[in-house]
Amino acid sequence: MNTHGSLLVISGPAGSGKGTIVKHLLQDPAYAVSISTTSRAPRGDDIPGVTYNFVTADEFKDMISRGELAEFAEYVGNFYGTPVKTVSEMLHSGKHVILEIETQGALQIKSKFPEALLIWLSPPDYDTLEARLRGRGTNTEEDIARRLSTAKRELQFLPYYDYIVVNEAGKAEECADKIRAIVAVDSMSTKHNPDFTSIFYKKK
Amino acid sequence: MNTHGSLLVISGPAGSGKGTIVKHLLQDPAYAVSISTTSRAPRGDDIPGVTYNFVTADEFKDMISRGELAEFAEYVGNFYGTPVKTVSEMLHSGKHVILEIETQGALQIKSKFPEALLIWLSPPDYDTLEARLRGRGTNTEEDIARRLSTAKRELQFLPYYDYIVVNEAGKAEECADKIRAIVAVDSMSTKHNPDFTSIFYKKK
Repeated sequence: MNTHGSLLVISGPAGSGKGTIVKHLLQDPAYAVSISTTSRAPRGDDIPGVTYNFVTADEFKDMISRGELAEFAEYVGNFYGTPVKTVSEMLHSGKHVILEIETQGALQIKSKFPEALLIWLSPPDYDTLEARLRGRGTNTEEDIARRLSTAKRELQFLPYYDYIVVNEAGKAEECADKIRAIVAVDSMSTKHNPDFTSIFYKKK
Repeated sequence: MNTHGSLLVISGPAGSGKGTIVKHLLQDPAYAVSISTTSRAPRGDDIPGVTYNFVTADEFKDMISRGELAEFAEYVGNFYGTPVKTVSEMLHSGKHVILEIETQGALQIKSKFPEALLIWLSPPDYDTLEARLRGRGTNTEEDIARRLSTAKRELQFLPYYDYIVVNEAGKAEECADKIRAIVAVDSMSTKHNPDFTSIFYKKK
């Protein structure tokens, strides 16, 4: 019924498995990620237009002042953001657009795209979260404590999210299915089908 | 995560296939229909407490004045309604409660139970709707015209419904699956999981 794609904002603490779930979703060509725009300099493995769209800091500031960004943030002196136009065009082409962003950006998206589906990806319990962080093997005890503390701080934004999707250990595909179900159900929502009553008048 | 059942209001025009879809849903013991209360006299095939709960007209009016009904209507001198208490108790027992009611009742339910999922069941197109009405074989041309006209009038309430679920010809089970998906997705909604953040603090 609805030819317009859904906008999915996926957030979650380190250890929630976001990256893996997004990869699972992208196996279906109906899903796509929006490419971020950044003012940081390209690095060795960057491919302009693929990893990021690169602009200067002044160009980025102009985009901000013209209200062209659906969300943006500054990290260690560089800007990162998502242009409204990119997202709108992808949605109108029928793609389900995934934004894997943190909580502050998610709230910015919701104000620009009220129909966005804010999904909070969560480990099933505290022990699994901690085990995932340790499992990476590259984190020091200090890193782990810091990430757990960040996760707890971000939880204050949970009430602004539409859905909590639990990513159980070893069940990534099942978790991706839950997100696909959210998208399928969203496409049946009355607000996406404003012209639906017309079928009762199309008499041959 | 959520042990409270979902409340489903299912409406749709004659010919939408409501009765069939509800039967499909009830094959899963997690679903149940709420038994209506009526002031009409029991008939031969009625079983009190199964087909209806029977009360006198005065008892029904007392229920109205005490605000005990989630919705009610009067047809040819008899009252029909759904007690709030019945619905609440079924939901708290974890059942997904189905109310197969018309549009006016649906809006009453939404005001008493804001978390209710209002589902509009629809034939895929006008021709299918008309074919279903004719297919019953028991309707006169006048009946069919009247039902089509009622369907069009009820469509004014469509914007108050949360979801439009299309019941394609010969695909009742698929249609029931769409409703099950709505319920599954509803159980992941943040509003049904207010205590979710606690998992980040339950350290052993």
